Amino acid sequence: MATDKKFVESITDMEKDFPQWYTDVVKKADLTAYSSLKGCMIIRPYGYAIWELIQKQMDEKFKETGHENVYMPMFIPESLLQKEKDHIEGFAPEVAWVTQGGDKQLEERICVRPTSETLFCEHYANIIHSYRDLPKLYNQWCSVVRWEKTTRPFLRTTEFLWQEGHTAHATAEESLEETLKILDIYANFCRDILAMPVIEGEKTEKERFAGAEHTFTIESLMHDGKALQSGTSHNFGDGFAKAFGIQYTDKDNQLQYVHQTSWGVTTRLIGAIIMVHGDNSGLVLPPRIAPIQVIIVPITQQDDVLEKANELKTNLSKICRVKLDDSDKTAGWKFSEYEMKGVPVRLEIGPKDLDNNQVVLARRDNGEKITVSMDELTEKIPALLDEIHENLLKQATERQNHKTYVAHNMDEFEKTLNETPGFIKAMWCGDKACEEAIKEKSGATSRCIPFEQENLSDVCVCCGKPAKHMVYWGRAY
Amino acid sequence: MATDKKFVESITDMEKDFPQWYTDVVKKADLTAYSSLKGCMIIRPYGYAIWELIQKQMDEKFKETGHENVYMPMFIPESLLQKEKDHIEGFAPEVAWVTQGGDKQLEERICVRPTSETLFCEHYANIIHSYRDLPKLYNQWCSVVRWEKTTRPFLRTTEFLWQEGHTAHATAEESLEETLKILDIYANFCRDILAMPVIEGEKTEKERFAGAEHTFTIESLMHDGKALQSGTSHNFGDGFAKAFGIQYTDKDNQLQYVHQTSWGVTTRLIGAIIMVHGDNSGLVLPPRIAPIQVIIVPITQQDDVLEKANELKTNLSKICRVKLDDSDKTAGWKFSEYEMKGVPVRLEIGPKDLDNNQVVLARRDNGEKITVSMDELTEKIPALLDEIHENLLKQATERQNHKTYVAHNMDEFEKTLNETPGFIKAMWCGDKACEEAIKEKSGATSRCIPFEQENLSDVCVCCGKPAKHMVYWGRAY
Repeated sequence: MATDKKFVESITDMEKDFPQWYTDVVKKADLTAYSSLKGCMIIRPYGYAIWELIQKQMDEKFKETGHENVYMPMFIPESLLQKEKDHIEGFAPEVAWVTQGGDKQLEERICVRPTSETLFCEHYANIIHSYRDLPKLYNQWCSVVRWEKTTRPFLRTTEFLWQEGHTAHATAEESLEETLKILDIYANFCRDILAMPVIEGEKTEKERFAGAEHTFTIESLMHDGKALQSGTSHNFGDGFAKAFGIQYTDKDNQLQYVHQTSWGVTTRLIGAIIMVHGDNSGLVLPPRIAPIQVIIVPITQQDDVLEKANELKTNLSKICRVKLDDSDKTAGWKFSEYEMKGVPVRLEIGPKDLDNNQVVLARRDNGEKITVSMDELTEKIPALLDEIHENLLKQATERQNHKTYVAHNMDEFEKTLNETPGFIKAMWCGDKACEEAIKEKSGATSRCIPFEQENLSDVCVCCGKPAKHMVYWGRAY
Repeated sequence: MATDKKFVESITDMEKDFPQWYTDVVKKADLTAYSSLKGCMIIRPYGYAIWELIQKQMDEKFKETGHENVYMPMFIPESLLQKEKDHIEGFAPEVAWVTQGGDKQLEERICVRPTSETLFCEHYANIIHSYRDLPKLYNQWCSVVRWEKTTRPFLRTTEFLWQEGHTAHATAEESLEETLKILDIYANFCRDILAMPVIEGEKTEKERFAGAEHTFTIESLMHDGKALQSGTSHNFGDGFAKAFGIQYTDKDNQLQYVHQTSWGVTTRLIGAIIMVHGDNSGLVLPPRIAPIQVIIVPITQQDDVLEKANELKTNLSKICRVKLDDSDKTAGWKFSEYEMKGVPVRLEIGPKDLDNNQVVLARRDNGEKITVSMDELTEKIPALLDEIHENLLKQATERQNHKTYVAHNMDEFEKTLNETPGFIKAMWCGDKACEEAIKEKSGATSRCIPFEQENLSDVCVCCGKPAKHMVYWGRAY
């Protein structure tokens, strides 16, 4: 089909130019558009519908585990942001400052939240008094602003959407437990909903969040072998509590500091989905976050075909997110349009199918076509969507395993990264100097110290001194 | 019960001091808290859960009528805000200006959106080309900022949450139809979900939105006789389209301007719920947006009572939003706590109830108590919640009717407003000068020209010249 070809040819091959492929997909699949302000993106209906599906399913997990949603102001007075020393150092260089309200110059600058630890801490200091007030398990869905120099849709933008959880606990054990529980929710969500494998582990001190005692992370691997930090969960201990005076009276009537956590995932996850599952025909969406799970394409515009297509749509809408494209565009155009948009299943129906009481189902993940009786559709489609999910997860896991290498010395390390980019597993002495040297030599950063440790050798890949941890390294977004 | 009394006494009587009653309810029902930035509120879990229920149910209505959600940036460059002359005049005095990003002074000031017409217009100019691209029916849920001098939780805050719909249509007729369709969705939502009667009508030219040809509104009446604008729907005609160059090629290959609308409701609706339904025991929530619809209060802490209470909770959670308070506080404390929080139904269970296989259901709206067999609960409770909804709507409608007066001259007008505040229906010549004179004399503004017109007399209540419309007037929030 001529139109078909032409449509698809307008995307760059990912093997030729991965960044351009990414930009093409984001644009052609109608996910985002540029606004007149550099670095700010418009999330278009199709992109936003993916975010809504992520949000809804993740919010359920938060609520099931006892978390409550709140809304904090978007503004933070400069004096409040400065209360925790490490925190302000980390964020001050990248915040947007409001200095005028209406016609008036403000007496104190206020920043647009880059993250809301300081606001939650101030609030917690006001509302937590007794052990009966604990734990506080709050979350909010909002947008935050970080004044970025170079930006890319979903991956790094001046404003982005996210959720930020902020909790306060009576003891250090409880806050650590919460931090890890959330990391597990994130990791399971990636696998079970996004069909995306992740490595779970802890960040090194150098890569830790500003003000945290521990930062845990889930790291995923993109098609081009670059890593993407996909979610983080921070344990603050009582550092913020001491800076903000968040104290409670325990059962023995003693004044104690609370222990806190914070954790977040962002619209970056959509970038991850694109770069983990996508191919040279465009987006490939995991069924559980696909705004359209089944696209019905009538092969001809005959009345009886359209009528049946409409009837199928009505029936299927009870069991999945289905759309019928009955526009007067060619079937070929529609095929490539919905391939570009990553719709998991295409349902083709033509005059011959009508005669045989059947339809053709085409899978986006592997291109397979099967013929199915119309009577079996409501049974087959949910099963097929699950099968596609499992296959996407399997493929992505295999790709990630295939692109995970071991390095025993810096020569191997650099050679591997340059020739076959991916995760590099290598031993590390625990010294920041080695971490910095590795970054300087190879451009790779430590992604995490994975929970699942392996003993690859006894010595650090960089300095040769005794090794403390196995670390995942990689060049990252 | 001593604890009961003591708890309730801490709210001011609404008849004594309505504004203080409002502030007390908002605080004691845990709806909001203050942040360190004047005019910005923290929406606490209980308040935010109400907003989530509003959002979910209203979003369904938008989607059913073909609207799609998007996300626009929160920042608007000054030059973009200035593109439509009336619009910038209306909003410039009340916006927050970002002038620094990180360490750098920005070349152009950017404002935090007070509303997003300009952003949607710019985007529409980029994506609308042909009649095939129309209509565009977009909506977004976000927060906006208006630099207010005096603020009150939910009613007027520097930052507030809302939805803003922005649509583009081929013809003037279609955009007018959309504007009215949305007003209807708002009005029905208020009645069917919030149990709140509203007057539907059009704003006078003086009260119109900056840049609109028509502004339609729903107006509701609070307990204290003051009016609250509860939602607006604007028809822009092609004014913005001309300012932003939003054109499409019609079927005859002619270039045409689009016709646009915008419309919104905000967290103000929560303020309306408080002031329409609340009483001297606190909040009274309409069941369909009550985060807790049924609160189970065990009368004693006996094991068998708690066990049965837990069992009931599990069963009822399948049909309503139910909570069990099994804390060691007294039953009396719990009674007034959940009255304060406006929970529609209290389910009391004690040892005697266990013996008789029954519970007591107490209604928040009228205080009635009924004894119900445990076997009938899953049937009775949904019916009871509907009954409470209907009763709240009926009561509020009666109150509104009772507080709606007619004035034939300015003496009557002022006397009524001063002695029995409420809506005043009065005839108007259509002249802005009279509208201004009325405001100066009485403090009342024109709330709307209602769709349901009555001919109260032939002359304007203010100047005595021939009347054009009947208008609802009132002092307003």
